[in-house]
Amino acid sequence: MRLNTLDIDDLARGAAFLGTGGGGNPYVGRLLVDWALARGGLLELIALNDIPDDALVIPTAGMGAPTVAVEKLPRGDEAAVALRALEQHLGRRADATMPIECGGINSMIPAVVGLLLGLPVVDADGMGRAFPELQMETFNIYGAAATPMAIADEHGSTAIVTTADAHTAEWLARGLTIRMGGHAMIAEYAMDGATAKRVSIPGTLSLGIRIGRAIREAREANADPFSAIAETLVETIYRDGHVVFAGQVTDVLRRTTEGFARGYASIESPDGEVLQITFQNEHLVARVDGEVRGIVPDLICVLEAQTAEPITTEAIQYGQRVKVMVVSTPEMMRTPEALAVFGPRAFGLEEEFRPIEALVGEMGAIR
Amino acid sequence: MRLNTLDIDDLARGAAFLGTGGGGNPYVGRLLVDWALARGGLLELIALNDIPDDALVIPTAGMGAPTVAVEKLPRGDEAAVALRALEQHLGRRADATMPIECGGINSMIPAVVGLLLGLPVVDADGMGRAFPELQMETFNIYGAAATPMAIADEHGSTAIVTTADAHTAEWLARGLTIRMGGHAMIAEYAMDGATAKRVSIPGTLSLGIRIGRAIREAREANADPFSAIAETLVETIYRDGHVVFAGQVTDVLRRTTEGFARGYASIESPDGEVLQITFQNEHLVARVDGEVRGIVPDLICVLEAQTAEPITTEAIQYGQRVKVMVVSTPEMMRTPEALAVFGPRAFGLEEEFRPIEALVGEMGAIR
Repeated sequence: MRLNTLDIDDLARGAAFLGTGGGGNPYVGRLLVDWALARGGLLELIALNDIPDDALVIPTAGMGAPTVAVEKLPRGDEAAVALRALEQHLGRRADATMPIECGGINSMIPAVVGLLLGLPVVDADGMGRAFPELQMETFNIYGAAATPMAIADEHGSTAIVTTADAHTAEWLARGLTIRMGGHAMIAEYAMDGATAKRVSIPGTLSLGIRIGRAIREAREANADPFSAIAETLVETIYRDGHVVFAGQVTDVLRRTTEGFARGYASIESPDGEVLQITFQNEHLVARVDGEVRGIVPDLICVLEAQTAEPITTEAIQYGQRVKVMVVSTPEMMRTPEALAVFGPRAFGLEEEFRPIEALVGEMGAIR
Repeated sequence: MRLNTLDIDDLARGAAFLGTGGGGNPYVGRLLVDWALARGGLLELIALNDIPDDALVIPTAGMGAPTVAVEKLPRGDEAAVALRALEQHLGRRADATMPIECGGINSMIPAVVGLLLGLPVVDADGMGRAFPELQMETFNIYGAAATPMAIADEHGSTAIVTTADAHTAEWLARGLTIRMGGHAMIAEYAMDGATAKRVSIPGTLSLGIRIGRAIREAREANADPFSAIAETLVETIYRDGHVVFAGQVTDVLRRTTEGFARGYASIESPDGEVLQITFQNEHLVARVDGEVRGIVPDLICVLEAQTAEPITTEAIQYGQRVKVMVVSTPEMMRTPEALAVFGPRAFGLEEEFRPIEALVGEMGAIR
């Protein structure tokens, strides 16, 4: 499947939706792809099942605080440099790249790498959404090795990090990212095609395109984009999408600390209810009076109330009118192994994971 | 030249003298060498001029705060692991290792690597003393490339860092060192023999042995070890050694911050004069009432008053009776290029460099 510029527009928006507040600003992601497209080349998407079992797949991404990525803009080729550094270390050329997560930047980085290096991009990823840390990947949960990984910055500095486990890789690479100015590009979880098929969430790039397209077409038809999103999701492994809250942003606390954007946003409904969303790069939990309305790893998406434009954690601000949509995650992201790595406890939250289907049953018809 | 255990004892002490407060605790260094010796093997020292021009020399060292190194003891083989990782990255085996600095640990690490891997150790180093940062090496000043460098910790984590300059290598590797717990082992400035001859301070390991031996023999003969040190130095490129102060430690401020041990020590003489020594891992400047008595890159050595045992910055404490000796550094460490990298201004000090010979001329006969 070859992507045209309209597909890429749709992907930037749809991936930002799936990024659940993180994964980077879609405008920055779009700029990067435009820059890479202008240098020529075609953007080729390849289905997860079409990768040969013995092909070498090297996923690529940006790493760091999204609050930094909107100010310290990438040079453009850092992720390609990271991939090449990892290839050199492995002594083997990659046959394809792949996103590690969904998001406005991180769904785009592999496209940039693919355009610059002439590699196809696998239609899958390792988070099925965005998460703030490198061990929080189905790649890790289902047994791919995080390292050797490569990290590169806009000054041409690179590092190859090799560790015994993904947590340590995250810890060391985060330290490098901070010293590289808070945002850098990585190539990690190099794996063969057979492994990729076993450990990846399939179809998330084309899902991003479909969601982006649904939003765009609904706007063009003066239809409700939220219904359009929900109707799109119902046909996919992300089955249930529910608007759980609507209101106006009344408070935002956002600090860039230890390499992450952390904080919360409060949204007040017309009848005075307040939804508070806690985030670490991505939205982790949404509560009204302490009662959970959506919780990680399910997707908590803050969308502009009229247009359903996704609002990322570094862009949310006082006064915005928004709707909050919670989306069920695929089954392989809800297993006990998966919840141990990126469930609520992994973020220090007290609550157990409750699927949105169950929460909606309790809440009753919300809209 | 093959070293026996007495040589190694002498080296541990003499190198701690040359470490000017830093370069790591000699007791920890000695433990590491004993551990490596117990595994068999012989410790071979090779003169700088005897290295073939096309030989590959990979210097090895510990990196981090000496305050941490005395508590988080190394496993022992981390520096050998770092060297092997760098060899693998370069696609070539090392013919020898070499210290990057003089010091109680850092003169010993190459010996440990040599013993474990069967490599000779070059009798030279890249600082001619100890300095706190990786760009502060004659290797860098006279044109060897700091990277690719390798860093390894006791958990088996490794990183290969490649940067455009030595300052950036220091910055990134320091970040990794901090995340590795405050101390790690490195292999850096890989170079051929011809380069090593051009950029290294020659003979500093054998000088360390000679200084250590002079101290030991003076003690055994109930002679003055300070005179013995000065007499030893006069025959070397470290010409002038002067005791500039004697007294008791009355105050120490020491913080382990940003990966360094920083602070000062105050020493009061019997007639009430106070010498204050400022340090960042190593002693940087010694002042009485703001008047400089010794300043970087000249060596400022704090020695136990009776035995001339070197006292490192992490071991100095209230009540110790000490003498402070300042030693002239070789000419290649006092060039404008060298002073730009490790002169007083590089440490944020306001004073210009003043050679100890000139200072002593002003101070008159001190003892």
